[in-house]
Amino acid sequence: MATNETITAPRGFLAVGVKCGLKKSGNHDLGLVVCPSGATASAVFTTNKIISAAVQISKTHVKSRTIYAVVVNSGNANACTGQKGIAHAIQMCAETARHIVVDPHEVLVASTGIIGEQMPIKNVIAGIADAAGQLSDSESAGMNFTKAIMTTDTRPKTACRRIMLSDKQVTIAGTTKGAGMIGPDMATTLCFITTDVAITKPLLTKALQNAIGESLNKLTVDGLQSTNDTVFILASGLAGNRLLDSQSSDYKKFTDTLVDLCRDLARQMALDAEGATRMFKVIVKGAASQADAAKAARAVANYDLVKCAVNGGDPNWGRIICAVGSSGVKLNLPKMSCKLDELAVFKNGAPTNFDRHKAGKIVSQTSHTITVDLGVGKYCDFCFGCDLSKNYVTINAEYHT
Amino acid sequence: MATNETITAPRGFLAVGVKCGLKKSGNHDLGLVVCPSGATASAVFTTNKIISAAVQISKTHVKSRTIYAVVVNSGNANACTGQKGIAHAIQMCAETARHIVVDPHEVLVASTGIIGEQMPIKNVIAGIADAAGQLSDSESAGMNFTKAIMTTDTRPKTACRRIMLSDKQVTIAGTTKGAGMIGPDMATTLCFITTDVAITKPLLTKALQNAIGESLNKLTVDGLQSTNDTVFILASGLAGNRLLDSQSSDYKKFTDTLVDLCRDLARQMALDAEGATRMFKVIVKGAASQADAAKAARAVANYDLVKCAVNGGDPNWGRIICAVGSSGVKLNLPKMSCKLDELAVFKNGAPTNFDRHKAGKIVSQTSHTITVDLGVGKYCDFCFGCDLSKNYVTINAEYHT
Repeated sequence: MATNETITAPRGFLAVGVKCGLKKSGNHDLGLVVCPSGATASAVFTTNKIISAAVQISKTHVKSRTIYAVVVNSGNANACTGQKGIAHAIQMCAETARHIVVDPHEVLVASTGIIGEQMPIKNVIAGIADAAGQLSDSESAGMNFTKAIMTTDTRPKTACRRIMLSDKQVTIAGTTKGAGMIGPDMATTLCFITTDVAITKPLLTKALQNAIGESLNKLTVDGLQSTNDTVFILASGLAGNRLLDSQSSDYKKFTDTLVDLCRDLARQMALDAEGATRMFKVIVKGAASQADAAKAARAVANYDLVKCAVNGGDPNWGRIICAVGSSGVKLNLPKMSCKLDELAVFKNGAPTNFDRHKAGKIVSQTSHTITVDLGVGKYCDFCFGCDLSKNYVTINAEYHT
Repeated sequence: MATNETITAPRGFLAVGVKCGLKKSGNHDLGLVVCPSGATASAVFTTNKIISAAVQISKTHVKSRTIYAVVVNSGNANACTGQKGIAHAIQMCAETARHIVVDPHEVLVASTGIIGEQMPIKNVIAGIADAAGQLSDSESAGMNFTKAIMTTDTRPKTACRRIMLSDKQVTIAGTTKGAGMIGPDMATTLCFITTDVAITKPLLTKALQNAIGESLNKLTVDGLQSTNDTVFILASGLAGNRLLDSQSSDYKKFTDTLVDLCRDLARQMALDAEGATRMFKVIVKGAASQADAAKAARAVANYDLVKCAVNGGDPNWGRIICAVGSSGVKLNLPKMSCKLDELAVFKNGAPTNFDRHKAGKIVSQTSHTITVDLGVGKYCDFCFGCDLSKNYVTINAEYHT
């Protein structure tokens, strides 16, 4: 029997995904995660100045000492929906709390979908009742939850890691949705992580922020933050490990694993980004500052002309250099260079006599690395991006109406 | 007989466009504008930190008291080409100067095309010789020049205005190329303006900077500045008007007309942007500062999800609000509103009960206006944008190889 790799894998979690009629396709659109024993929770939210009703409510609720459940819907973002939208988000928490008999403040809420339409709240309430009766720690329950958060995703995205901490097996599992409106910070849309590690809330927050900074926040699909981006992590503490100490090797092992898990999810998002056929990693080195390195890497990964060239398998490196120059970072053209994987195409400010056929093959891979040296300093950063295809346009010209 | 509306319309200008083999298509790719009596000239250049060899050379040459010619090529950007590229740009000026017997510093140069490949300089030199023998003030000569600056443009872009200043007819004519890599500042790629007005160099510079700020710099196609963006204006002074005084109504008339001409060119660029089928204007008002208004307007016009929605004729206004929130400007959600032309779709932070059919018709027009009120201040700015189509991807995935 295959091992459960979904969010119900860590001890102490039940999940469910149901269909309540929010998606026109009739697919799963409402999910619950419940930790009956209560979880320590933390979150990272969108940096967009306009935030959904769910984000507004969850920002308050996540301060609770214990979180018992997360309720999430797809098919409607409940953003730009005014006071009525806020009331709906509160109602989602209250209904979930009523079924599992906890305080509404101990329930987190997340929404994704079309912005600016009122939530069909009757469907949602019926969906919560339906879901509450089907909670399970089975793999299929975890997978149904994942299905319930998908929008334009073509496949579910889950990841799971198992490590030994103080002789106890600790499990971390995560699931995320893509697939557009993804830009640092935060390249997330919605992401849910469960773990049975024993950890304090402040340390869990620190570990989460670090992991997201090194993974989802390094991914850009179209450069924008949605109004709804949310990452929740819930720790049940049931693994039986010694409570994590921030100075211990166990904590380092936990955070390294969390980063690895989040990068796995980020890669899955990049490869399933709307219309994407390929992904790439941009490394910018030789920068005058960390901020410059990050800015230049994002500028390249976000630049439509680079994304189109990658789509066409075209080693059009001039567009990479143009994007870097346009980003406004400090650079020294006569010392600049650019490589596609290990192939130098631009060196000391001038083109090399590179093998075009070879370069074309590099860019045509499922994944390749672009390295740009700014020639001014010692700082380095990276960003993941994906190609821009005709299908991205089709998906986004037709979504909605 | 039709009136000449090309850059040879103002008194004192000759032009020509020839084919020298830089474009694979075999089309016109080298142009000259010559002012035999000498012109007062000014320029606006790209803000990209990486600038082409032509921009580097022209930045120096434009300081000359008198400019006699502009030489321009398409098919090769001569950018990221190192010292060899600089030598080629100097050679282009020198060869042009030799034919018309002026100093090389009195010739401006501009290039557009693929970045990172060395200029086939022999072709260019043969082209300059060919061109120098065919200079003419005819309409067809002006049109051939326009053809020689086109890259992925599907049609030539020219505009002409005639006004009376101190009882003399003054003509201003301009031509520009599109069609991608266009973002404020400077939304230009290449633009050439000729006029017979009598004006001093400092005042001409002031008038040009103002006009570009109000027109080409308000246009974004894909949000990036190319390495080659250049606007040149040449004034022959042959109209016979009284030398323009910065405090006179004549100067105001001249600058208003120049803005109008540049906006005409900007609109032509938006409608012929790579793959574009529609354009739109974003007005942001109620901003806390002018910079915030401009930033938010550009964020909306640059946002791929908005551009895709416009392509699909979809009134998906939530993406507009999301882009505004993501831009980081100061806003007050409960006081925010959004209109598509005159139709209110979002008011005081909540959706209105708008007519979706009517909204779809508005967004499906060749051009529509998006107005966003941030609800915090009194500042206002605007930006022109265009849709993102499958054809944009096709053009940019296939350009180059």
